[in-house]
Amino acid sequence: MTWEDNVRRAVPYVAGEQPQRSGMIKLNTNECPYPPAPGVKAALQELDWEALRLYPNTDAAELAEALADYYGIAPEQVFVGVGSDDVLAMSFLTFFHSGRPILFPDVTYSFYDVWANLFGIPYKLCALDEEWHIRPEDYMAVNGGVIFPNPNAPTGVAESLDTVERIVRANQDVVVIVDEAYVDFGAESALPLLKKYENLLVVQTFSKSRGMAGMRIGFAMGSPKLIGYLKNVKFSFNSYTMNYPSQKAGVAAVKDEAYFRLVTQKIMDTRKRAKEEFRRLGFAFPDSMANFLFVTHERIPAGELFAALRKADIYVRHWDKPRISDYLRVTIGTDAEMDRLFAFLRDYLSSN
Amino acid sequence: MTWEDNVRRAVPYVAGEQPQRSGMIKLNTNECPYPPAPGVKAALQELDWEALRLYPNTDAAELAEALADYYGIAPEQVFVGVGSDDVLAMSFLTFFHSGRPILFPDVTYSFYDVWANLFGIPYKLCALDEEWHIRPEDYMAVNGGVIFPNPNAPTGVAESLDTVERIVRANQDVVVIVDEAYVDFGAESALPLLKKYENLLVVQTFSKSRGMAGMRIGFAMGSPKLIGYLKNVKFSFNSYTMNYPSQKAGVAAVKDEAYFRLVTQKIMDTRKRAKEEFRRLGFAFPDSMANFLFVTHERIPAGELFAALRKADIYVRHWDKPRISDYLRVTIGTDAEMDRLFAFLRDYLSSN
Repeated sequence: MTWEDNVRRAVPYVAGEQPQRSGMIKLNTNECPYPPAPGVKAALQELDWEALRLYPNTDAAELAEALADYYGIAPEQVFVGVGSDDVLAMSFLTFFHSGRPILFPDVTYSFYDVWANLFGIPYKLCALDEEWHIRPEDYMAVNGGVIFPNPNAPTGVAESLDTVERIVRANQDVVVIVDEAYVDFGAESALPLLKKYENLLVVQTFSKSRGMAGMRIGFAMGSPKLIGYLKNVKFSFNSYTMNYPSQKAGVAAVKDEAYFRLVTQKIMDTRKRAKEEFRRLGFAFPDSMANFLFVTHERIPAGELFAALRKADIYVRHWDKPRISDYLRVTIGTDAEMDRLFAFLRDYLSSN
Repeated sequence: MTWEDNVRRAVPYVAGEQPQRSGMIKLNTNECPYPPAPGVKAALQELDWEALRLYPNTDAAELAEALADYYGIAPEQVFVGVGSDDVLAMSFLTFFHSGRPILFPDVTYSFYDVWANLFGIPYKLCALDEEWHIRPEDYMAVNGGVIFPNPNAPTGVAESLDTVERIVRANQDVVVIVDEAYVDFGAESALPLLKKYENLLVVQTFSKSRGMAGMRIGFAMGSPKLIGYLKNVKFSFNSYTMNYPSQKAGVAAVKDEAYFRLVTQKIMDTRKRAKEEFRRLGFAFPDSMANFLFVTHERIPAGELFAALRKADIYVRHWDKPRISDYLRVTIGTDAEMDRLFAFLRDYLSSN
């Protein structure tokens, strides 16, 4: 026996490529094309750098309070983590502990099965319908918990609050997690349901709509009991996860609602234009409520387009997976970036 | 059945209090009394804040390279995380996977049993000898892995490289983790053993000797194979753990070796003075190689002293645990802070 026989073998999640060349167009990881709120810059520049010698607040209390304030809930209903991936990983570890299979869509965020495998949580995939919608009845079976993004990724399709509530209501013996990473671009949040359901966890992030992927801030909102269990696991893992600069920068971002509205509206406007343009070029797509579009072309296979775009230094996302291999996920960039994308596509499609 | 029946119940680690009142003296969580290297301030102020909209480098490659350079190893031998607690938690999850009990000292960092409980890892405590030293023969039994801090906490006692090597050599069928959070204050690192043993993981942190607890930077060094397994688990948990400011600030800290030497030497000098003073006041303590002293008084119980100090706004650490309930762990502060501590103790001991 060697030491390697005693090691956990994990098959990691593969994130989108992160090349950073000037001139390239990066539409592959759903980042915000605009910088964070100006207050974030000020918060970082005025940071009491000598205070870095001290451990940060374990609960990121100031940030949790700012979020509670903004969303009209109590601070003990907020949990913050190092990006929503940290929050979701902790939630899997905390809430999906029954031994029964958890349920999530067959086409969804590809980290869910990675976490389930890492923690030995059994799971069952529920197929989306032909229009990429959740079939609520699939989530009525006995299960160990439910998770789905709303809007879903990589489709961008949003479910109504009514659909979400049907699923939460039918599963009050387990925890239902609604992953709202993309909710700020026109979808309905499940937040109002927190008043009625103790078993609901709503997870959001600063990485998309607040333009702060580099800062790593995610958060969850739920009943004080639910958040309490999550904190106990978090504090069994790492007392101090969110560093001092993130706590300060996070607060500054939350406090600038006008900038937040401006940026999300700009992205929705560009998405509208992009839809028209894609349609003109022979692409089809489900109606997206996220900061990306999930497009398929009537003639050219997605794999071929992906490769051609990559050669032109335009990065989008493509998965060689069942049901979605003929689609590209294209992040909504600035208008100028989208113009360059469409100029390339027009040219490519006219000569291929 | 309710949703609460399906939740993991964890008993969290309890960190030292983090009050932040002006005038108080905080000697309870082994923070550095001096700020980070001046380059850290510059790195944060010159931060490209617009780049915060992008995800950070998943491997914190620039920081891993700076550390590899500094310690004379290859970049693929370095793993970075959100404080050494993050690195250690990931290491427990990755390496202690055999089902056999892992071994660690009975008096040690109190997070070890918390992680073991969280991940369902069986463990066996090995009693330190009367001088708080590890008995290497205890670690020769069949086990699922070994972890110990060197110097140990909360005793401050350091083991020789020879003792460490005996334990690593005897356990080549499992992973041996040497937690060197406090190694920079005069102890010997196990780093030279990396050339000989593929099963050794050395974990260090920026929170103590580099004065950056608020930034959350920890790292592990080991064979490329070992680090590879650790990365696979990390990338199954969270792709982007270390934020962009931490990566930049970490590099700046590593590059200023002169400041690092200056600060650690200052703390060792103050520790020397503190030892003499404690001895004069009737305290005994093991010889510490860390940035704290583990002291017991000949007459006054530790619990009583702890309470009296707290009333005077001087925070030290006390555990109501077997073998150590009559000790206080006192972080080495600035000379001025230590002077105030000793003035209080002189006064208290002369009237009690």
